[in-house]
Amino acid sequence: MYDPSENDLRFAIQHTIGLDQISHLDAFADVSPDLVDAVLSEAAKIAREELAPCNNTGDTQGSKWNSDFTVTTPDGFKKAHDALSAGGWYGIEIAEEFGGQALPHLISAAVGEMFHSANMGFSLCHLLTQGLTHALTVSASQEQKEKFLPPMAEGRWTGTMNLTEPQAGTDLAAIKSTAVKEGDHYRIKGQKIFITYGEHDMAENIVHLVLARAEGAPEGVNGISVFIVPKFLVNDDGSLGERNDVKCVSIEHKLGINGSPTAVLQFGEEKGAIGYLVGEENQGLKIMFGMMNHARFGVGIQGLSISNRAFYQAKEYASERVQGRPLDRNEKDTIDHHPDVMRLLATMRAEIEGQRGMSLYGAAALDRAHYESGDDKAFWTERSSLMVPIIKGWLTERSLNLTSDAVQVHGGMGFIEETGAAQHYRDARILPIYEGTTAIQANDLMFRKTLRDGGKAVNALLAEIKTDAETASKSDDANIANAAADVLRGTETAIRAVEFILSNTLSQREAAAISVPYLMMMGTLTGGWMSVKSALAAKGAMNEGTWDQTFLDAKISLAQVFAKHTLPEVEKYAKIVLDGGASIEAMAPEIL
Amino acid sequence: MYDPSENDLRFAIQHTIGLDQISHLDAFADVSPDLVDAVLSEAAKIAREELAPCNNTGDTQGSKWNSDFTVTTPDGFKKAHDALSAGGWYGIEIAEEFGGQALPHLISAAVGEMFHSANMGFSLCHLLTQGLTHALTVSASQEQKEKFLPPMAEGRWTGTMNLTEPQAGTDLAAIKSTAVKEGDHYRIKGQKIFITYGEHDMAENIVHLVLARAEGAPEGVNGISVFIVPKFLVNDDGSLGERNDVKCVSIEHKLGINGSPTAVLQFGEEKGAIGYLVGEENQGLKIMFGMMNHARFGVGIQGLSISNRAFYQAKEYASERVQGRPLDRNEKDTIDHHPDVMRLLATMRAEIEGQRGMSLYGAAALDRAHYESGDDKAFWTERSSLMVPIIKGWLTERSLNLTSDAVQVHGGMGFIEETGAAQHYRDARILPIYEGTTAIQANDLMFRKTLRDGGKAVNALLAEIKTDAETASKSDDANIANAAADVLRGTETAIRAVEFILSNTLSQREAAAISVPYLMMMGTLTGGWMSVKSALAAKGAMNEGTWDQTFLDAKISLAQVFAKHTLPEVEKYAKIVLDGGASIEAMAPEIL
Repeated sequence: MYDPSENDLRFAIQHTIGLDQISHLDAFADVSPDLVDAVLSEAAKIAREELAPCNNTGDTQGSKWNSDFTVTTPDGFKKAHDALSAGGWYGIEIAEEFGGQALPHLISAAVGEMFHSANMGFSLCHLLTQGLTHALTVSASQEQKEKFLPPMAEGRWTGTMNLTEPQAGTDLAAIKSTAVKEGDHYRIKGQKIFITYGEHDMAENIVHLVLARAEGAPEGVNGISVFIVPKFLVNDDGSLGERNDVKCVSIEHKLGINGSPTAVLQFGEEKGAIGYLVGEENQGLKIMFGMMNHARFGVGIQGLSISNRAFYQAKEYASERVQGRPLDRNEKDTIDHHPDVMRLLATMRAEIEGQRGMSLYGAAALDRAHYESGDDKAFWTERSSLMVPIIKGWLTERSLNLTSDAVQVHGGMGFIEETGAAQHYRDARILPIYEGTTAIQANDLMFRKTLRDGGKAVNALLAEIKTDAETASKSDDANIANAAADVLRGTETAIRAVEFILSNTLSQREAAAISVPYLMMMGTLTGGWMSVKSALAAKGAMNEGTWDQTFLDAKISLAQVFAKHTLPEVEKYAKIVLDGGASIEAMAPEIL
Repeated sequence: MYDPSENDLRFAIQHTIGLDQISHLDAFADVSPDLVDAVLSEAAKIAREELAPCNNTGDTQGSKWNSDFTVTTPDGFKKAHDALSAGGWYGIEIAEEFGGQALPHLISAAVGEMFHSANMGFSLCHLLTQGLTHALTVSASQEQKEKFLPPMAEGRWTGTMNLTEPQAGTDLAAIKSTAVKEGDHYRIKGQKIFITYGEHDMAENIVHLVLARAEGAPEGVNGISVFIVPKFLVNDDGSLGERNDVKCVSIEHKLGINGSPTAVLQFGEEKGAIGYLVGEENQGLKIMFGMMNHARFGVGIQGLSISNRAFYQAKEYASERVQGRPLDRNEKDTIDHHPDVMRLLATMRAEIEGQRGMSLYGAAALDRAHYESGDDKAFWTERSSLMVPIIKGWLTERSLNLTSDAVQVHGGMGFIEETGAAQHYRDARILPIYEGTTAIQANDLMFRKTLRDGGKAVNALLAEIKTDAETASKSDDANIANAAADVLRGTETAIRAVEFILSNTLSQREAAAISVPYLMMMGTLTGGWMSVKSALAAKGAMNEGTWDQTFLDAKISLAQVFAKHTLPEVEKYAKIVLDGGASIEAMAPEIL
């Protein structure tokens, strides 16, 4: 049975990142180590007992569209949803005044990791609802918040994001849905596709956040507004009123995450769906960008989660499957004693450790960006904005490799669907696509987060990694010192690559052509940084007596594995950054 | 509609590899350029018109197992099989005396690429049948050949390989199936799993080649024998007799290649299936190894094929999908004008060019190993034995990345099954597993092909690459010279890595732990070598007037892309070879 990485998360929060990152903030004055322990234990329990058991069911049954325009979720999903609702898990990030628990991202990221590891198809509903409550918290009126947030905190209602239209995916400027003002509301018409949990049977109501053009709005991205469009209209007393004019006309047949319905929603087949403007007209893109960090960060966590779930399954299988005699040994043994199986498992596990550090570091950065003040706020805003595309891009791209490695560990059995390894491989494939493809993350990193500020943010990060690596390279633990020296060399390489990018010898198109390798370089390096941080934290915790020695030793060994097997990618990507732009720009579609 | 890469194959055979590699051999005295042209055109036609149209059908319908132990293949498969049979395509490698065409591997590899590109699930039956006819050609008695080869050359009967049992996958020593001698035949009992086309409705008869233990055989790999077990017994006049005691008790539900039935075969539920010994008792492993190169090489080609098919689909989509305004441009355009989409497409296409060179080079090497004499025979035997694990390992591992990149080009549509991109991604996943996992290929390369001969074979290859790269680095075409200089640097890196491996400073287990990175390093480098060869060939063909200038220019541009985007992996893998073994050997299953 799947067991979430509760102890690794606890260790990373307490030691690798440190609760002191956020405990000085007034908003989190109550967040004690005991509270963290309690939340993680409860989240692990619900992940293990409620979410994980319907993961494979979700995949094999899938959500079903019915001819009355309803959607039936797989067996177990409603029960899991009720359990999450009863536990208050939909409200962990929502302010207390709206019925939430106002926990820091540092904790909700750890909870999210466990939920998505247990059942990504199911937990998408949680992710989307959190995205919506975050958007409303930042941008909605007090009245709107009072109306919509409390039921979502309770899980009675869930949320969706309605951006994509058939002709408008990455290019939001192409959005055609319309909104016509009518008294205190608007009438929305248009078709939205790829709407995750756009229709389902787990909650009383669904709150859609919809991008559309108000009458008379300018063309392009400056004419987009955001509307709240509830599935059922809401009376003044909070009770549900009439069905709104929005209909799920079909759901997609997908490669993975089959438990989650991906809906085509038709708004306004009759008089137009009633929608409520969020903020002001034509400010839609700004509002969306305000929540983008949150949503993209959440998808990055999904990358870590699905990798971790796949790793867990591969490790279990390898510890049970007997096949052949490992080299240098006399007896047959389980395949985790074979060197190449161990290479696969150890490199997966090492990356996961680094990724977990990145996820929690990014979470703390988001918390501090929100709650610090003055220079600190500016610093953490910059830092979190820099980290988000790296986390989203690298963790999701790597999830393709890690879930693939997990299939490979299973040999032929990995290709058989009943084994379950293939599901993770299929599920992962959406992650580098939705909430902005890797290319979009990489362009964000290249143009907005690196070139726009002349490299200020990225150089500050690299300087910090360099200082940390220099210090760690003097550790009296030879393994840590050695891994840190590798990180130091990688950092110097990355600094040269960034200097090259900033030297402006590249055309804009050449810069775009090397932006993904640039992102991957930064991801690998920050992963290595975090893996050394984790090793140092393990070293530091050795005299504490609260952690098992093997558990702590593993973190040091894993930093070695990361340094020797994953970190060499920094040099590779740097080389592509330095030398790869022109050859792509020289290509033309005609000659492919 | 899918269009096979007929011209690229024609160019590679004529110019990059050269028909003169084999035209001096008596066996291929009749293989003229005109014959090559005619065969490729016909193969392309049948791939395009018969195989490709039922590729997606094969995936969505899948083969179906029926309760009378038969298997129904998807719509179109029987028709495609009849077309292949009528065209003599099952016999292209079989000797003329048994009704075949005795074409060289150099041509059949090109045909195989097109068939597998068009429909891998279907073409597996062709691959397995070729594998079986090859095995019988090498190891069966004249009487057996006369009985079984002609109907397979005609496609009236197809072939299977029966190795795997539930407890015996990679570890063939664990095989338990038994064979008891009874007059001129044996009675076979046991269960075999993962038997591709172990049962189907396309042919009159199925010839199973089965590994089993004869009575009294020693334990382990030295007690395995090989038997021919036909589905229907064959009368002396070649007509079909009684049904043999072998039954398909189920087929697998797989991640991909759903058109192909993967059977569980039960031998000997009653008196035991009648089987005919091939060669002598207990020589089974030797016989299997004799055909291993052939089968593994065939799977390597599948890797190239599925990558090429995925590339083709991505290119088509990108040339039609309009989304956003490419950087530096004023108008919206198709997404193949976006730099990152071009990066994905160009790097895919560049690798495919290098892989195609490797495939055809490997094919010519197999031909020469078979038909040369004296020192030349020894040289090509050594060279082809070295190339096979590299081709199988690298081309199939890379197919995972290339089919994934093809999904990425499609954005969200790539995740929708109806688009078709996901099928290639799913289909590819079996390739690094069957016919020996990548770890098995890598161990073969490391221990049998490198350490056993003290590096003789691999150093000869590296010396040849180095000489070629040195020469090409002086080309008056700056792009070729530049790419060749990168290959030269990569070669020097690889030479150092091989020196390290040969220095015997590693334990056997450490060597095994870095064997996959070693294989990947060699694959990347030989791919780069071939891409420069292709560019040189294009340069040489420019005054010939028979090839379109854009077509030739592309090959030079693609060598640049390979050098700048793929070749940096050589350094990465070399670093892992030099420095990665100890960190894996230091891990233990308990600390994961």
